[in-house]
Amino acid sequence: MDIIPPDWKGSEKIGIVIYDHMTALDVIGPHYFLSKLLGADIQFVSHNLDPVQCGNGLAILPTATFETCPRDLDILLVGGGSSGTLAAMRDDRLIAFLADRGSRAKWVTSVCTGSLLLGHAGLLRGYRATSHWIGRPLLKEFGATEVDERVVFDRNRVTGAGVSAGLDFALALVMRLRPLAAAQAAQLFAEYAPNPPLHSGTPDEAPAEVLGIAREMLSDFVSGVQETARQGRK
Amino acid sequence: MDIIPPDWKGSEKIGIVIYDHMTALDVIGPHYFLSKLLGADIQFVSHNLDPVQCGNGLAILPTATFETCPRDLDILLVGGGSSGTLAAMRDDRLIAFLADRGSRAKWVTSVCTGSLLLGHAGLLRGYRATSHWIGRPLLKEFGATEVDERVVFDRNRVTGAGVSAGLDFALALVMRLRPLAAAQAAQLFAEYAPNPPLHSGTPDEAPAEVLGIAREMLSDFVSGVQETARQGRK
Repeated sequence: MDIIPPDWKGSEKIGIVIYDHMTALDVIGPHYFLSKLLGADIQFVSHNLDPVQCGNGLAILPTATFETCPRDLDILLVGGGSSGTLAAMRDDRLIAFLADRGSRAKWVTSVCTGSLLLGHAGLLRGYRATSHWIGRPLLKEFGATEVDERVVFDRNRVTGAGVSAGLDFALALVMRLRPLAAAQAAQLFAEYAPNPPLHSGTPDEAPAEVLGIAREMLSDFVSGVQETARQGRK
Repeated sequence: MDIIPPDWKGSEKIGIVIYDHMTALDVIGPHYFLSKLLGADIQFVSHNLDPVQCGNGLAILPTATFETCPRDLDILLVGGGSSGTLAAMRDDRLIAFLADRGSRAKWVTSVCTGSLLLGHAGLLRGYRATSHWIGRPLLKEFGATEVDERVVFDRNRVTGAGVSAGLDFALALVMRLRPLAAAQAAQLFAEYAPNPPLHSGTPDEAPAEVLGIAREMLSDFVSGVQETARQGRK
């Protein structure tokens, strides 16, 4: 007798776009919960099959290229970062891939500043969306409406806030795609009952001095995104 | 003028042990926060430099082998899993590596069932420790005292609970190694203000039926760990 209820199983095709100097956790957090969509097929997609360098020693191997990735995806997911994401915005083939697969995917999704890539691919025009706190005010550059929430569903667009929000995002998506008990089991396996030892996870909670340093460290990213978005509209 | 305060920088050597069919998030969550230990060097360590297959399409490239990894580490970290972790317990070279580097590392750490690997390497005898909820009652097999907490510090042993606890674990470690403001900045960059859409992350919170299915899915793992631990004591 199989332990697992039959309706916990499905057959989604999931494509996770990865690129150099991205924030790996943006997609590895979601990958954990999406792996609990039993029966789903998950591909890590990039230009080619060379390792994607995420910095600080971490390299992930793609399993598919922009050419070999299934044409019709159930879930298209892209994560963010800072300098790597800015480079990805300026990567015409990557943006064209997002625009193409995003035009047909059942769910078009992002975590962190990945929403700026969806935006640059024209996929968030007229949609409510979120992003990393540094990226949220930039969403309007792409015709999206900024929402100050951790996970935002608008029709088939699902966007998560910064980095760690990928866990909340992906668990919320599992809840849409499987019976409640399957999502509860996924959360239990992850022991996802977070208890941060500090309370500095949002611009409101962080000390002003810390927020100031963080903003300064990200200022080139912000101006780079604005410039690239404006060039894209010309 | 450099934006970043000089005392946010250090020079730790960090070794993260990876192995096939482990739960990648156990170490990729921590990797995010440990990357905020500016100046630290992080190595992903395995038998050889072949990709480590974590399942569901995810493969991570090691940067060092058990031979080339620095002999004296500031932080030794190992993550967990289920069948992969059981295989790792039975992998004499991996366990010998943990025992060797763990005998000198400044911090000997784990997330999830990684603590069972530390235990099998003899590194938790007489220590208080935690693990994934399924692994916590197994810690006594290795002479450790089970603590039902998300992150447990006992002298230089630091253990985290299941999977997602790696974020709380690593942020707590950053707090020990850097000024408070640096840890606050790390949390802000991660936008780590979690807000799970469900409340089923612990055995107490999950519905009894869901917990029952999860326990049944992990029953071979539990008996395998017990058997391997007992053989190790012969």
